[in-house]
Amino acid sequence: MLPFARVTIIGLGLIGSSIARAVQATMPTVRLTGHDASAEVRARALALGFVDDVTDTAGASVVDADLVILCVPVGAMGAVGAEIADDLPADAIVSDVGSSKASVLAALVEVLPGATIIPAHPVAGTEHSGPDAGFATLFNQRWCIVTPPEGADPTAVQRVEEFWRRLGANVETMDPKHHDLVLAVTSHLPHLIAYTIVGTASDMEEVTQSEVIKFSAGGFRDFTRIAASDPTMWRDVFLANRDAVLEMLQRFSEDLTALQRAIRWGDGDALFDLFTRTRAVRRSIIEQGQDDAAPDFGRSH
Amino acid sequence: MLPFARVTIIGLGLIGSSIARAVQATMPTVRLTGHDASAEVRARALALGFVDDVTDTAGASVVDADLVILCVPVGAMGAVGAEIADDLPADAIVSDVGSSKASVLAALVEVLPGATIIPAHPVAGTEHSGPDAGFATLFNQRWCIVTPPEGADPTAVQRVEEFWRRLGANVETMDPKHHDLVLAVTSHLPHLIAYTIVGTASDMEEVTQSEVIKFSAGGFRDFTRIAASDPTMWRDVFLANRDAVLEMLQRFSEDLTALQRAIRWGDGDALFDLFTRTRAVRRSIIEQGQDDAAPDFGRSH
Repeated sequence: MLPFARVTIIGLGLIGSSIARAVQATMPTVRLTGHDASAEVRARALALGFVDDVTDTAGASVVDADLVILCVPVGAMGAVGAEIADDLPADAIVSDVGSSKASVLAALVEVLPGATIIPAHPVAGTEHSGPDAGFATLFNQRWCIVTPPEGADPTAVQRVEEFWRRLGANVETMDPKHHDLVLAVTSHLPHLIAYTIVGTASDMEEVTQSEVIKFSAGGFRDFTRIAASDPTMWRDVFLANRDAVLEMLQRFSEDLTALQRAIRWGDGDALFDLFTRTRAVRRSIIEQGQDDAAPDFGRSH
Repeated sequence: MLPFARVTIIGLGLIGSSIARAVQATMPTVRLTGHDASAEVRARALALGFVDDVTDTAGASVVDADLVILCVPVGAMGAVGAEIADDLPADAIVSDVGSSKASVLAALVEVLPGATIIPAHPVAGTEHSGPDAGFATLFNQRWCIVTPPEGADPTAVQRVEEFWRRLGANVETMDPKHHDLVLAVTSHLPHLIAYTIVGTASDMEEVTQSEVIKFSAGGFRDFTRIAASDPTMWRDVFLANRDAVLEMLQRFSEDLTALQRAIRWGDGDALFDLFTRTRAVRRSIIEQGQDDAAPDFGRSH
């Protein structure tokens, strides 16, 4: 049995359009309605055909939905929730795909009192944005973290979990606050560091921008992929998950200072020990299917 | 005309064995001799067949070479240079592939007085190490930076440049000190940051190692590739290029502190501005053929 029959996706960028495509591929009888704040994106969604219907307002998109997924930047969740409040059917489940969960849950609870809210976060994506960037297999073998509020209806949680399993994802349930801490380490801090280093390298006087680009294969180019991610989405993530991000950043800075000291004092053993330890982490990630084993990410040579 | 007829490669790991394979592919009449400090690697090199001959000592490997390429960690260059000093033919050119150039040049000049030394650095590699990890196309469309000492014989420089062009590389000539500054930005700092963040994530109490690995697709896994690079090689690079690395690290830390402050005070505009700027850098790198345009590094989904 299908977990949902009528799914509405609000926000038709990389993630929203990937969900739609994955639903079409795995649950073709589901009726898909879409809405996006941008008229251009709405037209593009219709042209690409990954939803059955597109509505001009958020409210109109939810009137007969049994699942509504908000795929907008986390800073916009509250406003979009307010837009659909009057039209939301009483038995509909509201979910989202935001990268921080405690703040999104709080925002939705405030504007949708009494609604069944089951937030989720598919840990998947690419550096590209917009309705053309999505694809049906984005969630294959990736984890989707479902973060139900305390006292959530177990059946509603199970239906959202089943929905994500059908899209190809592995599902894990987590407390929203713990999610925010885990993702601060595995996603938010890496993005912040990547944005910073790409910024630092662009601002040199002694080394030209052209040199940075030419010789980026020495390692730098890896960081530029992440640093090409959507600016609005990431601005919102850092503001929404501020405390956990600042905490992780503090730890990272301490560790970096320790390495800096080891370099300054020529402590080769300290460097060698860390560099050996980090190698094992890569091995585990590949063993658990969370990255390709191909050298250099399988880039063509 | 071939730039060299008899090439000796000392150090038969990822880079040394890739050079040998690329020579076999592009200059099949060149006679290739190899040496490695490890008996196991020497045996493996013979079994894989990427050199014609393997010698038990470094000295024996150079007796009739017209090009000797040292492919050992930068901290070992001086010692290997000393090992070949007595057997090096007067007209041979000595080159290397080290990731820092000023310190390597100084070490080689000291132990090989009067020899023709033309250091070089192919900006290419993968996270894998050892004689099995090499492949012939590693240098295709990558840059090789040649850093001749002041007053170097122009013909010798041209021959080394031609050698690298034959292997598929683009060649650029640079002052050793400038090379060290450029690579500190485009390679050494990115590696140091990647090693640090992977270390930080492994040392959490509130977030388990298993969670870090499971949810690494949120960005963290990208860093683990670089942080899986050879520990000895990288320990040596940081010690050899200490001043430039510390200078870049200082700038990075300042920029990170500025971002930290923007997050703490909720300055979304500062975040958005940086995140927009960094996106353009990625675009340039792809336009100039230094990375694949495929989303997510072309990982399979």
